[in-house]
Amino acid sequence: MHKPVYIAAYHQSEFGKLMGMTVPEIIKASVAGVCGEIKADPSVVDVGSVGATCTYTLNQQGLLAGLMATIPGLAGKPIESVENACASGGQAILSVIYKLLLGLGEVGIAVGFEKMRDHEGKMDGKLIGQALGVFSHPDERPGKVYIFPHIFAEVMADYMKTHGVTERDLAHVSSIEYGNANSNPYAQMRKIKVTLDDCANLGDRNKYIIEGLPLKTYDCSQITDGYAAVIVATEEGLRRLGVAKADTVQIAGYAQATDSLLRADRNVLKAEGARTAMTKAYAMAGLTPQDVNVAELHDCFTVMGAIGTEVIGKAAYGQGAKYWVDGKAGVGGECGINTSGGLIAKGHPVGATGVAMLGWSAWQLLGKVPPALQVKNAKAAATFNIGGPICASVCTVLKPGA
Amino acid sequence: MHKPVYIAAYHQSEFGKLMGMTVPEIIKASVAGVCGEIKADPSVVDVGSVGATCTYTLNQQGLLAGLMATIPGLAGKPIESVENACASGGQAILSVIYKLLLGLGEVGIAVGFEKMRDHEGKMDGKLIGQALGVFSHPDERPGKVYIFPHIFAEVMADYMKTHGVTERDLAHVSSIEYGNANSNPYAQMRKIKVTLDDCANLGDRNKYIIEGLPLKTYDCSQITDGYAAVIVATEEGLRRLGVAKADTVQIAGYAQATDSLLRADRNVLKAEGARTAMTKAYAMAGLTPQDVNVAELHDCFTVMGAIGTEVIGKAAYGQGAKYWVDGKAGVGGECGINTSGGLIAKGHPVGATGVAMLGWSAWQLLGKVPPALQVKNAKAAATFNIGGPICASVCTVLKPGA
Repeated sequence: MHKPVYIAAYHQSEFGKLMGMTVPEIIKASVAGVCGEIKADPSVVDVGSVGATCTYTLNQQGLLAGLMATIPGLAGKPIESVENACASGGQAILSVIYKLLLGLGEVGIAVGFEKMRDHEGKMDGKLIGQALGVFSHPDERPGKVYIFPHIFAEVMADYMKTHGVTERDLAHVSSIEYGNANSNPYAQMRKIKVTLDDCANLGDRNKYIIEGLPLKTYDCSQITDGYAAVIVATEEGLRRLGVAKADTVQIAGYAQATDSLLRADRNVLKAEGARTAMTKAYAMAGLTPQDVNVAELHDCFTVMGAIGTEVIGKAAYGQGAKYWVDGKAGVGGECGINTSGGLIAKGHPVGATGVAMLGWSAWQLLGKVPPALQVKNAKAAATFNIGGPICASVCTVLKPGA
Repeated sequence: MHKPVYIAAYHQSEFGKLMGMTVPEIIKASVAGVCGEIKADPSVVDVGSVGATCTYTLNQQGLLAGLMATIPGLAGKPIESVENACASGGQAILSVIYKLLLGLGEVGIAVGFEKMRDHEGKMDGKLIGQALGVFSHPDERPGKVYIFPHIFAEVMADYMKTHGVTERDLAHVSSIEYGNANSNPYAQMRKIKVTLDDCANLGDRNKYIIEGLPLKTYDCSQITDGYAAVIVATEEGLRRLGVAKADTVQIAGYAQATDSLLRADRNVLKAEGARTAMTKAYAMAGLTPQDVNVAELHDCFTVMGAIGTEVIGKAAYGQGAKYWVDGKAGVGGECGINTSGGLIAKGHPVGATGVAMLGWSAWQLLGKVPPALQVKNAKAAATFNIGGPICASVCTVLKPGA
């Protein structure tokens, strides 16, 4: 048995535009922000990890660990940078947990962020498409301009055909998530009101992205700047921080699995690696999908909202979209999924996403989210963060710390 | 006490030019090569990590873990990509060790590589300079064209002034290493014969790189393609692999530390984070610097050969260059340092470097290196892999497995 680990604090920026913030400033703000949540000095932190995805190409910055170590109190400690494509944030948290379990410390900090827009908040879609495209297999790039939207448009078409699902079915994912985002002050799309019809039907703001494939604008996640940070601690660490267990959430289960980067190698609809990781996380937590009534999952596109619902065990294979159509994924449903707004409406600052999933879920379990989004009697949560074409998966199961 | 872990197999390419090999092919060749060394099927591997440094920018490839997972037998396992600048290879090995210690498996594989040259073996120095430059702090880039050569030219000048060392003193590092490389069939510069005078004096092939600073061509490591892979196993893993302990090397100590990425924050000559990591690794191994007579350390520039000798405890502060001048670092000296030829003459395929340090040291302890380079009665080894301006350090101590 591994010793238990807890989320002692969570902090995030508003998702959207960080304007003139530089990468060093973002990392400093992440650490200062999360330490500020519990009035801890950074020097109390023993180990750290930081994850981002496009920072080499979009921000000309690597060795993020060295930027974290510029913060007084952190120099010379075991801090590392991680990269797991869009699951970099989840990987950063796992990396911190691993170091705590190995006895390298009692308090760790995990930071995820992405700075995708320029200093005026504008985005260069083509450049961002190229920066994200490197996380695909080169054999699957020819003929695609926007690689991941194109890949997931194919996955969407495949899901619809295999399971008899319509574009309108999948539009339930986005319309419910936009609705959630309207009540989340951290969400990028918090001011955007859309109906199911807006998401389901073609319109001025909802167009097909790839010719001949069903993916439309509202099926897609956002281009987002943002950061998120958690302090993870052992029981000894909580004592040192002066944080009561009742104010924490236990990361009771966690696992990671990586499938082939080649989509052609496998039936991605089955998401076998992701299921392996999720199953391990449930087993470690001693919980089943029935025990969970909060989840944050990786809806980079609406079809992933459906597949993710299957991965976390809330719907059988092929039944994920129906779970949303039937209203079971709403705040008042059987399991509140992506009550934050998800990647589609909260935003997808790539490296921050996996951290924010745990952070928002922790807030849910602690009763700290805005009333309109609060799941009643929130018992336990599942998170599912992926990178690449359903390739690299980090899954966790959370429960109240006390 | 952590359970012991062993290097069960090591494999590397010749360092130099991989010509037309693609990144997917490099990762496949790494895994096939190291498994082939002990006739193991990849399916026996439980966990994996893979590190490279410039792959996002030079090769347009991320999520390397997903490429490793394309290999039959590896899909769906806990495989991750790591990035720790030029210490990415060392980080990949640590990452695998951590997963074994956590009980995620008994056999792990760590791969490091870099593909810096084009398919004709040519290099674009300016592009590579930019790709590596992202691993510096943005505040320390203005006014520098080639960022790391410039930073280390300043470190060299600082070292010379602070410690009363000459350019000729430091040329001992490169001339000894080129001499070693002449006997290493894997070394990029194996056919290049240079004398101490060639390295110390200006000449057609030895020019100052940055105006007003002492760094010359022969002080620098190479632009290199190459890959390296190790299989790390627990005792249970060795049994499963059918590898006798006598054919292995124990990774008896290991640690990692990250200093501020800002060189201005600290006296980099003191390399405090690196010393912290090295001290921890010795303590874990139950050994002292006196016990070690083999070392591979991160001589990205000759001054780092000197500072590295101090970090591993073979010379007092400021006395590292003298250790080389006095002949103590040679194959027949007090401790054979960089008998492989080091980054300067074996080559520096960035992500592979940290893996190759352990691999070559293991070969030394197992009596497997070419006779001219074999340290007599090789007892134990130290490795020191760094990234950035002496920022991210991975240190290990190795001893014979039986």
